[in-house]
Amino acid sequence: MIKYPTKKSTYQRQKTSVKNRGMNFEALIDETNTFYRFQKRAVIYKKPIPIQIVKVDYPDRQHAKIKEAYYKTPSTTDYNGIYKGYYIDFDVKETKNKTAFPLKNIHTHQIEHLRAIDEAGGIAFLLIRFVVHNTVHLLPIDALNNFLERAKTGRQSFTYQELVSTGLEVNEGYRPTFDYLSAVDTMIKTIKNL
Amino acid sequence: MIKYPTKKSTYQRQKTSVKNRGMNFEALIDETNTFYRFQKRAVIYKKPIPIQIVKVDYPDRQHAKIKEAYYKTPSTTDYNGIYKGYYIDFDVKETKNKTAFPLKNIHTHQIEHLRAIDEAGGIAFLLIRFVVHNTVHLLPIDALNNFLERAKTGRQSFTYQELVSTGLEVNEGYRPTFDYLSAVDTMIKTIKNL
Repeated sequence: MIKYPTKKSTYQRQKTSVKNRGMNFEALIDETNTFYRFQKRAVIYKKPIPIQIVKVDYPDRQHAKIKEAYYKTPSTTDYNGIYKGYYIDFDVKETKNKTAFPLKNIHTHQIEHLRAIDEAGGIAFLLIRFVVHNTVHLLPIDALNNFLERAKTGRQSFTYQELVSTGLEVNEGYRPTFDYLSAVDTMIKTIKNL
Repeated sequence: MIKYPTKKSTYQRQKTSVKNRGMNFEALIDETNTFYRFQKRAVIYKKPIPIQIVKVDYPDRQHAKIKEAYYKTPSTTDYNGIYKGYYIDFDVKETKNKTAFPLKNIHTHQIEHLRAIDEAGGIAFLLIRFVVHNTVHLLPIDALNNFLERAKTGRQSFTYQELVSTGLEVNEGYRPTFDYLSAVDTMIKTIKNL
């Protein structure tokens, strides 16, 4: 159980943080989600990795040991939940590339799932971290769709500058680490015409 | 990939079906969800079982074999998704008991999660199957809360008759097998005052 400070004075904003540079991006988003749940701001979880279990040993009732299993291809994205009554669905991506994000890093099942969620009235997007620039951006599904449409005849990636101009920047802070829900607020205002 | 018939004439309603009696309830709900996605009526999935992976063999890049892993306690319920723009969250329960459903069959993390979803504006419930009666009922979180409140000083279960009167019956049919979204419609009308 993570203990969160209750005093506001302990909150400190770091415009360009060095501490999180080496850390796994998914772990930082998990940390952010735990904080959001603690604040009762949103209930968002990462889904477990789907596994095909083949062989299990039961030395006793309480302790099952899985002896043979395989990774399965997921049907959906990794994260979903509820925020301000909206169904939220996204995946998390990271690149060490400096100038562009290759579209092949986004799998077909992820694109299809995000489109289905968007059609059903949910909030669908990607969170993309450019390690070199140490920035995180929210890319809404409609902007992703435009890049995928262009890729049918043109370039198989979008540039960092395109992400900066079409995505929504996610600020890095102390708690939460990446306040992506503030970017979601902007996205909701736009797509729900609020 | 399941092939669904497109002709309406192949649809047949079975008021009291025998075919599904021996089948795993979760598998029948999974089948129902696949059909709902096919119809574009809702996007609802079962979450994978959370596993703690300890040892993996990589004979080659494509074929990772998990050699040691353990079941983890889930933090949430098994099912969630989006329907009519609402965030939907539920768990599935089955009992061979004839007269009552023991509350101990509902785990603390499931109750806490369903309450958090309800507070956040989502649609939270249980789907309960009484095998002996061959019936399925949707129990909304507020009705469950009442039974849990009573259990603090009184009985540690609710009766089948109480479930019949406070829950919403789910009809069994051909496709979908258990049309629980029709019961969700009634629940939405009630809690959203529509």
